[in-house]
Amino acid sequence: MVTPLTARDTLDIAGLERLVERLVIGGVSGIFVLGTTGEAPSLSHRLRREVVEHTCRFVSGRVPVLVGITDTSIVESAQLAAAAADFGADAVVTSAPFYFPAGQPELREFIEELLPELPLPLMLYNMPSLTKTSFSREVVAWALGQEKIVGLKDSSGDLVYFRRMRYLAETARPDWSFLVGPEELLAETVLLGGHGGINGGANLHPTLYVELYQAAKAGDLTRTRELSARVMALSEAIYQVGKHGSAIIKGLKCSLSILGICDDFMAAPFHRFHEAEREIIRGRLGELGIAE
Amino acid sequence: MVTPLTARDTLDIAGLERLVERLVIGGVSGIFVLGTTGEAPSLSHRLRREVVEHTCRFVSGRVPVLVGITDTSIVESAQLAAAAADFGADAVVTSAPFYFPAGQPELREFIEELLPELPLPLMLYNMPSLTKTSFSREVVAWALGQEKIVGLKDSSGDLVYFRRMRYLAETARPDWSFLVGPEELLAETVLLGGHGGINGGANLHPTLYVELYQAAKAGDLTRTRELSARVMALSEAIYQVGKHGSAIIKGLKCSLSILGICDDFMAAPFHRFHEAEREIIRGRLGELGIAE
Amino acid sequence: MVTPLTARDTLDIAGLERLVERLVIGGVSGIFVLGTTGEAPSLSHRLRREVVEHTCRFVSGRVPVLVGITDTSIVESAQLAAAAADFGADAVVTSAPFYFPAGQPELREFIEELLPELPLPLMLYNMPSLTKTSFSREVVAWALGQEKIVGLKDSSGDLVYFRRMRYLAETARPDWSFLVGPEELLAETVLLGGHGGINGGANLHPTLYVELYQAAKAGDLTRTRELSARVMALSEAIYQVGKHGSAIIKGLKCSLSILGICDDFMAAPFHRFHEAEREIIRGRLGELGIAE
Amino acid sequence: MVTPLTARDTLDIAGLERLVERLVIGGVSGIFVLGTTGEAPSLSHRLRREVVEHTCRFVSGRVPVLVGITDTSIVESAQLAAAAADFGADAVVTSAPFYFPAGQPELREFIEELLPELPLPLMLYNMPSLTKTSFSREVVAWALGQEKIVGLKDSSGDLVYFRRMRYLAETARPDWSFLVGPEELLAETVLLGGHGGINGGANLHPTLYVELYQAAKAGDLTRTRELSARVMALSEAIYQVGKHGSAIIKGLKCSLSILGICDDFMAAPFHRFHEAEREIIRGRLGELGIAE
Repeated sequence: MVTPLTARDTLDIAGLERLVERLVIGGVSGIFVLGTTGEAPSLSHRLRREVVEHTCRFVSGRVPVLVGITDTSIVESAQLAAAAADFGADAVVTSAPFYFPAGQPELREFIEELLPELPLPLMLYNMPSLTKTSFSREVVAWALGQEKIVGLKDSSGDLVYFRRMRYLAETARPDWSFLVGPEELLAETVLLGGHGGINGGANLHPTLYVELYQAAKAGDLTRTRELSARVMALSEAIYQVGKHGSAIIKGLKCSLSILGICDDFMAAPFHRFHEAEREIIRGRLGELGIAE
Repeated sequence: MVTPLTARDTLDIAGLERLVERLVIGGVSGIFVLGTTGEAPSLSHRLRREVVEHTCRFVSGRVPVLVGITDTSIVESAQLAAAAADFGADAVVTSAPFYFPAGQPELREFIEELLPELPLPLMLYNMPSLTKTSFSREVVAWALGQEKIVGLKDSSGDLVYFRRMRYLAETARPDWSFLVGPEELLAETVLLGGHGGINGGANLHPTLYVELYQAAKAGDLTRTRELSARVMALSEAIYQVGKHGSAIIKGLKCSLSILGICDDFMAAPFHRFHEAEREIIRGRLGELGIAE
Repeated sequence: MVTPLTARDTLDIAGLERLVERLVIGGVSGIFVLGTTGEAPSLSHRLRREVVEHTCRFVSGRVPVLVGITDTSIVESAQLAAAAADFGADAVVTSAPFYFPAGQPELREFIEELLPELPLPLMLYNMPSLTKTSFSREVVAWALGQEKIVGLKDSSGDLVYFRRMRYLAETARPDWSFLVGPEELLAETVLLGGHGGINGGANLHPTLYVELYQAAKAGDLTRTRELSARVMALSEAIYQVGKHGSAIIKGLKCSLSILGICDDFMAAPFHRFHEAEREIIRGRLGELGIAE
Repeated sequence: MVTPLTARDTLDIAGLERLVERLVIGGVSGIFVLGTTGEAPSLSHRLRREVVEHTCRFVSGRVPVLVGITDTSIVESAQLAAAAADFGADAVVTSAPFYFPAGQPELREFIEELLPELPLPLMLYNMPSLTKTSFSREVVAWALGQEKIVGLKDSSGDLVYFRRMRYLAETARPDWSFLVGPEELLAETVLLGGHGGINGGANLHPTLYVELYQAAKAGDLTRTRELSARVMALSEAIYQVGKHGSAIIKGLKCSLSILGICDDFMAAPFHRFHEAEREIIRGRLGELGIAE
């Protein structure tokens, strides 16, 4: 879920409520706040807690809420996890600490040290392009032995890695959830037995991703191909307007703003699209049949 | 300066005082806290403020204190800068935000947005291996026009970059300070007109780096070569014991602990050296003539 | 196809014949020589021509032969393409030149300059981990307008890229072939409309990959999952024995040697597995039911 | 030395002669052909031999000739080394094989296997940005024990690495030559005891680099600074005109063409500068006082 903002350190609470409703009514299986698409590392710790608090209140138990606690400081991660439990969230999610690239034994020790601090189940979040470190085969093998760890979200875009990790977990932990990051790969992974995706595009068009998930899970190949092509069309139309790595989040927030759902203010170091780019997005939403 | 700790979120205040004294008496031109060697991103924001508070108190105006405010959240950076000014620090230092790799125009906008929040002069800190982004020629050219920005610390290890940026600043801002990161390059840069270095090894042996700086600045080539060889010997002896990128900080803290200056507790995701590595370090300190 | 060798610059011709038979009888749709798995860049140009000559002779028109002409010198690439045509090959394949990382306009110009030299159709080969350069959206868009270019083999492992390029070609060039590199992704790509894979594992067990391809193409999801799991099992068993990036080719050649198909001599900078690793491979072939 | 060409596979022999004269008369200590600046990997093997042949003929023993034999095929490297000896060259130079990134033990084995094939002394060439692999501390330590290996050219731009390797060799092999790649660092390295540089800019202005080398070696700090500033000025003026990594070689060849020394034809994948860029270069040569 994106984090609706109206100013540098100000949550767009009304926008957040509309967004949560859109997602829950759209049929999502859960809501993940404070991930990469949620710009979490760019938000103050105070605002991160505020996001969790209001999201949990708006969701009100209808679907599970997962909270990203990724931080470079284990103290801050633990504090956010405690807050998440207090507000009624269901699980926390952490990637590798992302300033110092930890060696793999150090990464294992980090998770080992974090676990007792967590009042909630933990999902690992593999995001090597931003954290510089992947959870290695050895660390995942260790994690499979930790009851409190319940799954892996893989945003590496490397499906060979995704398959290797699933293969590793198959007999050891059939209860683990394997969720894919890039939404363009939701169809592929679910067809082959993955458990779902955490898809930024669902902010904009939740039913598309929900229906694709259901079609792939049901093994309806024709429908899966058709919906997957629509996911590609949305990706091509909305995520390629900006020039930098921030183009995806900017495209999403701009779209949500055009649809009247929430403000498109971006946390630094990013800024919302200018009018020219906004006009492009507006036109493309029309072509995609995503009405205002 | 390393950050002495006795536990996960507990500052070793007595150790900090001994360390500050060692540095000031050793003749350093200034003290930089909360940099990479200071494990700043791994510390809670509360502890970061505590480091600044006590350091400023112990230094007590004898040398300038520079405070690293690098963070992924501009809100947290601004708050730390405000605290630094309150405690009496002299300047703040920021690298690029390091989770999202900002495009260069985004990086410029980030600094532009941060500047008015800062009650103190700003030094840029180029650290691409950890932030994924270098301050480009264009961004530095822009920064040269900002009165509040007063220099560049370059830890890229890329002296061609360092020289290019100095060349750029030569006529535009002769007042800028150009400080080099890797201490193994202090001699080279100062001989060619750089202004100094921010050297982790000075925690352990401040007079060595101070004397090397003075020799290079005075153009005493024989003495510069001799002292520079000793810097290399220290680097080879102390920084190569660990296996991961954390080896330098671990080696420094372990040495300081052996010398009785401060605790060697490391912030997660790192841990202090085990006894075997500690014995190696102890032996090497002896060989280097750095007495307990 | 791997390149069977008996010594540094000596082709294992009898082994090559057995391997070609195994593949053709196994039902492959074509044979690709002098790719990465074929260690092409490590072979002398003389030996490369010898590989093409004998392969074409042994295949004898039963399936198409594709020849890798990737080189850092356009002159050598063009000469190898001419030889390939003379020997009766069906198409040539080139990646980006891989010493100097060409800028994208330079990469387009390179292909543009190479095209008139080629007596055969050309397939592009995207292999950024080894060539440092990906064929960008703009270059692929240009290539879609070149009649002589007939497809893209993507070994990036990045299925989002693969899908984007297919999306781009969909209406412009429905005749293009999109083949995937990592064999672990054959199922995923073919289920979603990709055209097949160039799979190193087919050297060892051609029918497995052929049957998986057919099942996925037919939309038989149950069989696809079952066969894809066997591909993963082979990958885990055979490709993870060595420590370096060369582990895949070493595992394949070692297996083929154990099966009595061809020698496992490796071109420098690599060497065949030692006896200990060979024993591991032997045991795993047994577990996989791949009989000697 | 750049490789003067008049067409794709045609050496500019008259230009080569003028260039060699310029260098020898300019006072260089040796000539290195078929390096990165010589576009060696982009040339056919036939042309590479031709370059060696004519260079040796034109140099005629006045200074040592070093020949780059870097290739992805050990067979081609050995053949080029044999030709180099036949034509009278003095040493050969090789980087790591650059398609497959060799693991460090594989890299050592590669050099070990190459050594007996070489009729001439070998210098290692560290160029990780293009070969993906650095010669590790362990491999260099092994190389120090090989009599036939006589030095290291380091183009990594990482002076900490350069210093570490020099430190390693100090007592083991005081006869080794340590030469630096980026010419912008010639002053720094020679002042601290390095033995010289292999500087592309010397094609254009040999006396500048020769005089800088002599000043630094003599410890004349004032003159070193002054000449080093002129090297920076040349670098800023000539190497920043193009947009891609090829800008340095294009700038050099364009300058040499303007000066009437040799043709500026570039081997694919590169092309000479267009007229607009040529005009910029022409103007800057004037400003630098490098007359036509």
